Amino acid sequence: MPQALVVLSGGQDSTTCLYWAIARFGKEQVTTLTFDYGQRHRVELDCARRVADFAGVSNTVLPIDTFAALGGNALTESAVAVKQTVDAQTQLPNTFVPGRNLIFLTFAAAFAYPRNIRDLVGGMAQTDYSGYPDCREDTLQALQQALRLGLEFPVTLHTPLMFKSKRETVEMARDLGALEALAYTHTCYNGQRPPCGRCPACVLRAKGFAEAGLADPLLTSTAAG
Amino acid sequence: MPQALVVLSGGQDSTTCLYWAIARFGKEQVTTLTFDYGQRHRVELDCARRVADFAGVSNTVLPIDTFAALGGNALTESAVAVKQTVDAQTQLPNTFVPGRNLIFLTFAAAFAYPRNIRDLVGGMAQTDYSGYPDCREDTLQALQQALRLGLEFPVTLHTPLMFKSKRETVEMARDLGALEALAYTHTCYNGQRPPCGRCPACVLRAKGFAEAGLADPLLTSTAAG
Repeated sequence: MPQALVVLSGGQDSTTCLYWAIARFGKEQVTTLTFDYGQRHRVELDCARRVADFAGVSNTVLPIDTFAALGGNALTESAVAVKQTVDAQTQLPNTFVPGRNLIFLTFAAAFAYPRNIRDLVGGMAQTDYSGYPDCREDTLQALQQALRLGLEFPVTLHTPLMFKSKRETVEMARDLGALEALAYTHTCYNGQRPPCGRCPACVLRAKGFAEAGLADPLLTSTAAG
Repeated sequence: MPQALVVLSGGQDSTTCLYWAIARFGKEQVTTLTFDYGQRHRVELDCARRVADFAGVSNTVLPIDTFAALGGNALTESAVAVKQTVDAQTQLPNTFVPGRNLIFLTFAAAFAYPRNIRDLVGGMAQTDYSGYPDCREDTLQALQQALRLGLEFPVTLHTPLMFKSKRETVEMARDLGALEALAYTHTCYNGQRPPCGRCPACVLRAKGFAEAGLADPLLTSTAAG
């Protein structure tokens, strides 16, 4: 039975975290969990599977139909266009699913519990991001406490990217030997492969690679696309 | 827009909490949320709707398909018989869905957030129960903190039954004028109406009414069944 569970979205950050977990716990001790929550870009699920295959770890997909039923956000409703602006009232981008990371991590803990997996790993970071409050350190500390009490299980939430800039995350991927795997990842908010290069997610990713002085394998590798 | 959201399972406790919320916030300020998580006893969903109708408040059903995918427990898998014993390893009854109440309340908060509903009400209690750790006060305090931080929203989790015995809960229902509504509720682990009278849930419910010296309207009212 593995010891660590990585919540793998198929993106750059969770892929980097997967390699962090492999370096820390050993490949045989790592498994991955991906959520199919009705994301508009189904390519994310393919990316997660391809990343896990490339890294040589297993991948389980769990469905969550509740977000689509809650409705009203751009990541699950195709009729809602992705705006590059923030909501005037909440100051959050309209890709925000309230509490999404709380749900992901709680389901991850529920998956981990019967398997006696005590180390959960996620790509949340409170730097350089869109201001999602459920990615912040204090939120995740409170959630870890709720999970430990609510499951009576000594789960630890690891967020190795929490205080890293995008540049530092790229450098970490390089140091962990994860760059090649990043060719299989997906970032673009518009769901395009090759990426659109213009949406906030593409711009942020490009900035990180540029500042680290590295080429993005998603743009250069023959494995991408 | 309502001010308070009651998580309504269709059972005795959440129905009592609905009447608590109506007394505290006023009927016009209360709405209810029920989760369709693949429970084996679909009658619970009908009970929730009938309770809400009887009380004169609205009821929304949100689907959660993830518990069934997580698998392995008696409430969602018809092949798993309800045991009256506890799991030897965890000391929890095998009706336990790990973190179920954490998920319910987090989805309730995600539902409440865009509606600016700041008061969530649930029937969790740490007395007289089966030892579910996600029903305990300390767990829910930690969860409230995680929700407040993760949503940047001043949500309050109300659990008016937290420290009440079943007897006290029945007396509270009487004092709130909720007894008649309890005829529409569902408790039996075996999904029977009229209830089986033998499963742990039926036994616990009967004990509460007996100790309060009241008849259970589920057994006596013509509205039941």
